[in-house]
Amino acid sequence: MKIDGRPYRTIWLADDGWSVEIIDQTRLPHDFAIARLTTVEEAAHAIRAMLVRGAPLIGATAAYGMALAAREAPDDQSLSRASDRLLETRPTAVNLRWALERMRRCLAELAPSDRAAAAYAEAAALCDEDVAFNEAIGTHGAGLIRQASEKAGGRAGDRVVNVLTHCNAGWLATVDWGTALSPIYKAFEEGIRLHVWVDETRPRNQGASLTAWELNHHGVPHTVIVDNVGGHLMQHGMVDLCITGTDRTTASGDVCNKIGTYLKALAAHDNGVPFYVALPSPTIDWTIDDGVRQIPIEQREGSEVSALTGRTADGRIETVTVTPEGSPVANYAFDVTPARLVTGLITERGVCPASREGLRSLFPDP
Amino acid sequence: MKIDGRPYRTIWLADDGWSVEIIDQTRLPHDFAIARLTTVEEAAHAIRAMLVRGAPLIGATAAYGMALAAREAPDDQSLSRASDRLLETRPTAVNLRWALERMRRCLAELAPSDRAAAAYAEAAALCDEDVAFNEAIGTHGAGLIRQASEKAGGRAGDRVVNVLTHCNAGWLATVDWGTALSPIYKAFEEGIRLHVWVDETRPRNQGASLTAWELNHHGVPHTVIVDNVGGHLMQHGMVDLCITGTDRTTASGDVCNKIGTYLKALAAHDNGVPFYVALPSPTIDWTIDDGVRQIPIEQREGSEVSALTGRTADGRIETVTVTPEGSPVANYAFDVTPARLVTGLITERGVCPASREGLRSLFPDP
Repeated sequence: MKIDGRPYRTIWLADDGWSVEIIDQTRLPHDFAIARLTTVEEAAHAIRAMLVRGAPLIGATAAYGMALAAREAPDDQSLSRASDRLLETRPTAVNLRWALERMRRCLAELAPSDRAAAAYAEAAALCDEDVAFNEAIGTHGAGLIRQASEKAGGRAGDRVVNVLTHCNAGWLATVDWGTALSPIYKAFEEGIRLHVWVDETRPRNQGASLTAWELNHHGVPHTVIVDNVGGHLMQHGMVDLCITGTDRTTASGDVCNKIGTYLKALAAHDNGVPFYVALPSPTIDWTIDDGVRQIPIEQREGSEVSALTGRTADGRIETVTVTPEGSPVANYAFDVTPARLVTGLITERGVCPASREGLRSLFPDP
Repeated sequence: MKIDGRPYRTIWLADDGWSVEIIDQTRLPHDFAIARLTTVEEAAHAIRAMLVRGAPLIGATAAYGMALAAREAPDDQSLSRASDRLLETRPTAVNLRWALERMRRCLAELAPSDRAAAAYAEAAALCDEDVAFNEAIGTHGAGLIRQASEKAGGRAGDRVVNVLTHCNAGWLATVDWGTALSPIYKAFEEGIRLHVWVDETRPRNQGASLTAWELNHHGVPHTVIVDNVGGHLMQHGMVDLCITGTDRTTASGDVCNKIGTYLKALAAHDNGVPFYVALPSPTIDWTIDDGVRQIPIEQREGSEVSALTGRTADGRIETVTVTPEGSPVANYAFDVTPARLVTGLITERGVCPASREGLRSLFPDP
């Protein structure tokens, strides 16, 4: 998408033709910086330390990580080690496993000398496919925003549609377009008047830091709120629909997403507000059914809760601790929203109910 | 309660016998500082700028504000102006109106020359009454924690009871004991093993800043979590009961409390976790029934959302902005939890259902 008019993706091949460049998302929103990855180790670090984040972008980075690995040492043992190294960086996102499995399948039958070129080609294809999937999600999801606009009584575009989103499932979370925000960008391009409530999304504040930043630089009207506010807004008719992303979707339509998504889904359900989840199909984990019981929930460093980074009045970037000394902190990164609370899943093939039957209607033979 | 063994209240008459001292809660948890109030204007500022906060403590500060006003100028017009000045500081808490009304009734019939002494006496009585109410709330509420401990199969005290709370309804929110935390302090004194999940409580972080601080200095086991986590914990059986405070309770049992309380009540309801709200009866607004429609929700400065204050690694206190430049911010301070989501109200007279009938059973003639 665009940063002040100039088009960007989140990951791309550098001008040297082999190293990989990414936007260092830990520096946003205060600083726009590009980082260069030259080894699989650097790719793993970029995922673990969340220079890149978002399920689709994690998969894309892992794919390029395997290309860097194949360039370094294309033998089976080295590639297997590289894949394990990348897989262990984040336990929840299923795209990571999916991308690595795809790279393995692509490379396994090739002679080692052919693997590097093939790996770069496959990583590029995976990225292009992600962009195409997300753009299709945008097209399907924009229809839902158009309906919300029409439901309000006027022609599409007559009334501001309020969309609430949690965390960042924007173009920064993917290669381009985003998942949850792709329908918003498409609707915005169509000229539908909309406004986005951006959950701050503690910890790590990906809403305040990334979603607000990308909407702002693309020109989409939005307001940042703390995570506690959404229920109140829905009680007062100030949200027309919610759209979030997901890091892993079960075969039965449960969605695992950034911690706090479940609370917004409960509020939407209690107030009759449609709650949609946008996902490219690689996010579906066909092997599991019960998200609450079966998806491992990553626990991350307590410092993500106790400390925040921002800019001081005189422009310095500082990290400050906000909890008292001596108070323990826990940091659960995701929660699971049961399918019963999800109005629909927005996929690259269309919108379906959040159920086994719904998913199978679009993906009969996954 | 105690700060490292030494007993404190949140507001008291200074040694000079007329000025009023408070703990400046804007400096916590990084700095423990006492502020001195010498005029009604300073009292109004302390409420508006949240040096004091929490419905009961706001009422107590307003009462002492009227005593300072009566000392300055005890004529009807001056006192009426002072009362208006204090009333406009915070629109949501009903105790403020209640305390000012009580002071007015106390002073109206007196000769101006008698008013200052009477006002100081009435403010002191109001404070002592708050302490007695809150201690009684603690006694009644500790019974619920004891039951949760016994329900787990052992004798009381055998198993750690996990209590989740939102915002600060501890002794810092009242004159002493607190409302939601009073049962926790009482149960802790009884020797029941418990652990408190402390919602960070954005914005202003009263959970991380105040609840964690007071539990830590009193020695009660606790863990700070972001506001997004509670639903996940309840899905996994890690919360035995929730207790929050309230800034205003309707005659039908709806509770208006810090923004985000409603989301936790929804999660508790969805997971069969008891959700209790603790309140002294002056928090009840007998004049209204429908909390969602009738209670005005204060909107505060956006800077409370966009900026946070904490300590840097080298010990400086800094305020940092965490939202991108150019992104608007909205700051709704409270939400309303409908009575249907509240398991019970813990009052100074006992525990009752959150309903008109329940409240009337304890307060037949309010």
